[in-house]
Amino acid sequence: MNVVTSLAELRAARALLEEPVGIVPTMGFLHPGHLSLVRRAGIECASVVVSIFVNPIQFGPNEDLATYPRDLPQDLAMLGDEHVALVWTPTSDVMYPPGFQTWVTVEALTERLEGAERPGHFRGVTTVVTKLFTGVQPQRAYFGQKDAQQATVIRQMTRDLNFPIDIVICPTVREPDGLAMSSRNAYLDPVERRSATVLFRALERAQAAFTQGERDAETLRNVVSAVITQEPLADLQYVSCADCDTLLELHGHTDRALLSVAVRVGRVRLIDNVILTAN
Amino acid sequence: MNVVTSLAELRAARALLEEPVGIVPTMGFLHPGHLSLVRRAGIECASVVVSIFVNPIQFGPNEDLATYPRDLPQDLAMLGDEHVALVWTPTSDVMYPPGFQTWVTVEALTERLEGAERPGHFRGVTTVVTKLFTGVQPQRAYFGQKDAQQATVIRQMTRDLNFPIDIVICPTVREPDGLAMSSRNAYLDPVERRSATVLFRALERAQAAFTQGERDAETLRNVVSAVITQEPLADLQYVSCADCDTLLELHGHTDRALLSVAVRVGRVRLIDNVILTAN
Repeated sequence: MNVVTSLAELRAARALLEEPVGIVPTMGFLHPGHLSLVRRAGIECASVVVSIFVNPIQFGPNEDLATYPRDLPQDLAMLGDEHVALVWTPTSDVMYPPGFQTWVTVEALTERLEGAERPGHFRGVTTVVTKLFTGVQPQRAYFGQKDAQQATVIRQMTRDLNFPIDIVICPTVREPDGLAMSSRNAYLDPVERRSATVLFRALERAQAAFTQGERDAETLRNVVSAVITQEPLADLQYVSCADCDTLLELHGHTDRALLSVAVRVGRVRLIDNVILTAN
Repeated sequence: MNVVTSLAELRAARALLEEPVGIVPTMGFLHPGHLSLVRRAGIECASVVVSIFVNPIQFGPNEDLATYPRDLPQDLAMLGDEHVALVWTPTSDVMYPPGFQTWVTVEALTERLEGAERPGHFRGVTTVVTKLFTGVQPQRAYFGQKDAQQATVIRQMTRDLNFPIDIVICPTVREPDGLAMSSRNAYLDPVERRSATVLFRALERAQAAFTQGERDAETLRNVVSAVITQEPLADLQYVSCADCDTLLELHGHTDRALLSVAVRVGRVRLIDNVILTAN
């Protein structure tokens, strides 16, 4: 497993990789959710590239850039046990050298949900993912369903900018009690950790109602928020029952939807989602 | 010479091209300036790709999109006489299908000069050039020095977004009387056409002063504007003596500068420039 930092090293190492190449973009502090992407890429691609970069431009001024968990030695040890050909660990100076001034922006899809709560976040994501794509030149790229809006935005960007890359979205990996795996779960103290299961409990309750025939979007949102407001440590930021492609909020009867929530548990902001589908 | 329209056709044809591949992006209505780029690409590349696309998103609402000159049969005849492997003539629907919503923006470099006079213009240019780059995947791309700010902006974008592409800027090709070749020259009536030489006459006057030792940026700008204001049909939009890399206006002594002008002659907007360099 080759580990490179500079763009020149990356290009030289990339040129030697057997194709198709799959990329798994990460911000490090890897968990089984990341590894599920790495393994899926390993099945579908001749070579797997993992990038590890805590991307400063996708954090807002009041967000957790400084405290975001990092552990590169452990990340590399975990990846060393997988079929990974190349790890790219660029520094901020490699990604954003002095004078950097080019941005990639997706418009409509980023206006709601996480985009509304975190202004500038998706601009940072789409800009860095563009640079990962042009740097690594993969044939496939792997992202998690847990960040559902990010997946939709990156799919749109890839299509809009003609990148010849298949975007593969992999299922959310969960702890035994249902909490979606996330590097940010490391922020939770034991009491908060127990409360944090409320996101998936609420989504499961709505999923069950949907399975039993409930099709009204507003009712499904209410099922989620009713569960979350019963949890004392949880502060609901939004609950959304939206079109899976446009992310526009649904009203009335729906046979297919992205049901998503954002909740603060203590000072930790968590998101989760399920896709409701009648088939 | 293969002519393709859709992205799928382009990808299939591109895969067969010998590398390095050079792209010459154009809006058609080709003239000897374009052909100089095609010939330079032919010398430096194994395969030359020319794109012909009048890019709607780089025109402002009050600009000349509807009347921009077009003559595809003649363009293809001209390119047929050159060493061109592939011509890509996408339609607006190919480039910007329904739902398109992704933009590439270069910030500081686009705030002045043409960017200030034509809001949104460079956003349209950098977005389409990104799509030409991801579609054609060239190793080299050829642009004319006549659009000096565009050249600087595209160079910055290419570096910022990690495109593995050499940007080659070729000298401005001029008519015998000095007028820079431009598809928009077709708009000029015979009287305007004679007046239009004032841009290069003014730049030449300043170039001569520079050669004779004049180094003060403000004086050099004044030399240009004095010539242009003597021409009755000419309406000066700006004259700039700027740093070649940052495009920031220079003040005081300068040994190297981009001297550029924008002038309306009748209803036709023309630009031109020279690089002043003490060596």
